[in-house]
Amino acid sequence: MNEEPEEVLEAERPEEDSYTLDRRTITAILYAVDTENREQLVELMEPLHAADIADLLEQINAYDRGRLVRLYDKEFDGDILSELDESLRQEIIAILNPDVLADAVRDLDSDDVVDLVEYLEGPQQEAILGALEDSDRVAVQQALSYPEESAGRLMQREVVAVPEFWNVGQAIDYMREREDLPDQFYHVILTDPRFKPVGHVTLGSLMASPRRTRLNEITEPSFRTFNGAVDEGDVAYAFNQYHLISAPVVDDDERLVGVITIDDAMIVLDQEHDEDMLRLAGVSEESTLSDRVIDTTRRRFPWLAVNLVTAILASLVIAQFEETIAQFVALAVLMPIVASMGGNAGTQSLTVAVRSIATKDLTGANVWRVIGRECAVGLVNGVIFAVVMGIVGLIWFGTPMLGVVIAAAMVINLVIAGFAGTVIPVALDRIGVDPALASGAFVTTVTDIVGFFAFLGLAGVMLL
Amino acid sequence: MNEEPEEVLEAERPEEDSYTLDRRTITAILYAVDTENREQLVELMEPLHAADIADLLEQINAYDRGRLVRLYDKEFDGDILSELDESLRQEIIAILNPDVLADAVRDLDSDDVVDLVEYLEGPQQEAILGALEDSDRVAVQQALSYPEESAGRLMQREVVAVPEFWNVGQAIDYMREREDLPDQFYHVILTDPRFKPVGHVTLGSLMASPRRTRLNEITEPSFRTFNGAVDEGDVAYAFNQYHLISAPVVDDDERLVGVITIDDAMIVLDQEHDEDMLRLAGVSEESTLSDRVIDTTRRRFPWLAVNLVTAILASLVIAQFEETIAQFVALAVLMPIVASMGGNAGTQSLTVAVRSIATKDLTGANVWRVIGRECAVGLVNGVIFAVVMGIVGLIWFGTPMLGVVIAAAMVINLVIAGFAGTVIPVALDRIGVDPALASGAFVTTVTDIVGFFAFLGLAGVMLL
Repeated sequence: MNEEPEEVLEAERPEEDSYTLDRRTITAILYAVDTENREQLVELMEPLHAADIADLLEQINAYDRGRLVRLYDKEFDGDILSELDESLRQEIIAILNPDVLADAVRDLDSDDVVDLVEYLEGPQQEAILGALEDSDRVAVQQALSYPEESAGRLMQREVVAVPEFWNVGQAIDYMREREDLPDQFYHVILTDPRFKPVGHVTLGSLMASPRRTRLNEITEPSFRTFNGAVDEGDVAYAFNQYHLISAPVVDDDERLVGVITIDDAMIVLDQEHDEDMLRLAGVSEESTLSDRVIDTTRRRFPWLAVNLVTAILASLVIAQFEETIAQFVALAVLMPIVASMGGNAGTQSLTVAVRSIATKDLTGANVWRVIGRECAVGLVNGVIFAVVMGIVGLIWFGTPMLGVVIAAAMVINLVIAGFAGTVIPVALDRIGVDPALASGAFVTTVTDIVGFFAFLGLAGVMLL
Repeated sequence: MNEEPEEVLEAERPEEDSYTLDRRTITAILYAVDTENREQLVELMEPLHAADIADLLEQINAYDRGRLVRLYDKEFDGDILSELDESLRQEIIAILNPDVLADAVRDLDSDDVVDLVEYLEGPQQEAILGALEDSDRVAVQQALSYPEESAGRLMQREVVAVPEFWNVGQAIDYMREREDLPDQFYHVILTDPRFKPVGHVTLGSLMASPRRTRLNEITEPSFRTFNGAVDEGDVAYAFNQYHLISAPVVDDDERLVGVITIDDAMIVLDQEHDEDMLRLAGVSEESTLSDRVIDTTRRRFPWLAVNLVTAILASLVIAQFEETIAQFVALAVLMPIVASMGGNAGTQSLTVAVRSIATKDLTGANVWRVIGRECAVGLVNGVIFAVVMGIVGLIWFGTPMLGVVIAAAMVINLVIAGFAGTVIPVALDRIGVDPALASGAFVTTVTDIVGFFAFLGLAGVMLL
């Protein structure tokens, strides 16, 4: 990790604006690729962090990507693969010279290799596993035996653990003598004789305490362990909620098998957030800019298909009032307004509810209060916009009754939007469906149908 | 921090399911409050993490909250205030006994106090600052002199720094002798004679290296510093992008003034995500379940008002075709389908674009390629749904030309949705407007107007 520290320090000298790839750098790099100037390419790439190189590869097109990777050749670092978007890993691995790939992968920690190979197809996975040393390969294969997206896949197996009855001096001496300390660790884990973790001590408090202090007197109060089979989303939630820096992972007998650190948890949290956001917008699975058109199309298709069905349902409601509309065409002009306002208000309630469910702020304890509150918000906003639209309707079409109809429909639809926007995600969550994925379609269906039905139905009764 | 370690260990014994507040616990706590049984309340609350107690307070109603806080009285911990939602802090601070508040606040680190007081009103802020010891108050006031949401507000001022020419043995001896090491720290910062940070060393590599190793030979390659005035969002982005654990903060002369740790960065990242998501759904500012109805209504109002204007714009388009609709009412039935599909496809493109802008994956280097790709995705999905809707239109109304009209309008609107869904957020970002906040309204306006115009316009030409 720490070869050439002088150079690295020099290259990464603090500069506030230097931490993003600027356009000039990208242009210079592409020029070096065009002119096949390997020396210059290496010089330009050297100061870049692996995460930035991965971003660069994601931003350029496939043709340039191939030429760049081939020209960069044996400088290609394993960390770049780890940072790359999944959709590009296969492409890059296929381009890389097998020797370069083997070298690149051997430098990675076991948890990074797991992350790299877990979604690769058979032959590529075998090529990478084959490049590892035996002990590393066994570690990776054991991690792969845990379920997908579990704590076991996320953990690193290198741990620093000492008996719970040791004192500070013993722990420091032990670490200073041990040859193979992990690159990054933040806690010394205390274990009982059965190797069950019972607490942990930060390196900082080790430094701050007299040598004869017993370790179990300076343990961190926020200590928590996770079973290897626990979902990574729950792990990330706990890291975020309790400000954890690292946490031991245990097997079913509660024995220590690894440790998860905050950087891994942060990546998971980031992914879960993105997924929630994309799902709310009807984009299923991970969707990235570097996917091919056909993949993106396929990912967006299902929600659009659902939306088509719900839009047709809404149209069926309108069709019931064809005669009303034929007699009074102004209704056709105004009816999308009521539905659109309801859809937007519903989406507002829904988004707040989905986030609150994810952060466990919306629970059985307060669900009815929240529903009542959302309906009240819908009522207040509904009344305000009802007055506005009532006046607009009156002025525009000169029919007072039309203003009353649209105002009443607006109030009804905004209250329903608050109700549906909260009840639907809560109900989906209760029956085990991801509320971010499915709520949007249901909520807008409800607000469309209620909006058209209330407006056209009231118009039919009051205007004709 | 570490009083009563035995008890803490006992109470927080690992239990996978215990890290969320369950309903039974909440009920038991509220029963203790009802019966004014202080002893039982303290016993039930004791095993809970401050973050869970904050969640509990957010979930119960204001009446129970007041009774609970008063009964819990002097057990109330400063960390609970830090974890509380901003909207509730003022309420709780007003309820707390001034002595309890002073005690609670004195236990907090300076960065937590800054976070606590920065948005409080004058008298409450002064009450808390007055409770601090002089040195802490000065630290907090200095932090408050940095702009809102800057690195300077986020940092803690307690740092561990040594001269860059020291070796491992000197650093360890220094730390073991120093009396006031921070509770949590992960790196020893190396500084030059001007107190400018030039690198940092993890505590783990200090442990792993021989005493005579020079510190500047084992520095971390990922080292980065931030100016105190830098936006906290940029800090959080860098922590996430480069997997930082801690980073020094410097003043305008590049001298070390503090350090930001990953837990602070994680909170910011979490907030930014939430904000993006809520803004995309048209909920401005921070919105939480514990806000009052009137606050929530006010926060949701602006977007609904914008939506009303855009919905009226769309209606004006429809109004141009009143005669066409009057002659052929089926158009009124089908027209919302085209607009709705466009709105959804546009939201899909938009959400992916907003996320990509936030993570700096969508830049000047690839913007035209991404726009082209989104239009292509719109075209492919547009053609598929055009065929479906063409057939539905034909069967439903038995007019072949109506099928052709709706199919053509569908293709046009979905291509425009892909285009507008990408161009609009990119353009807003270029002119310095948060794309998450404003894009939604623009994109759906475009898809509504294009949808109605294409469908009704084509119908006017081809059907009549």
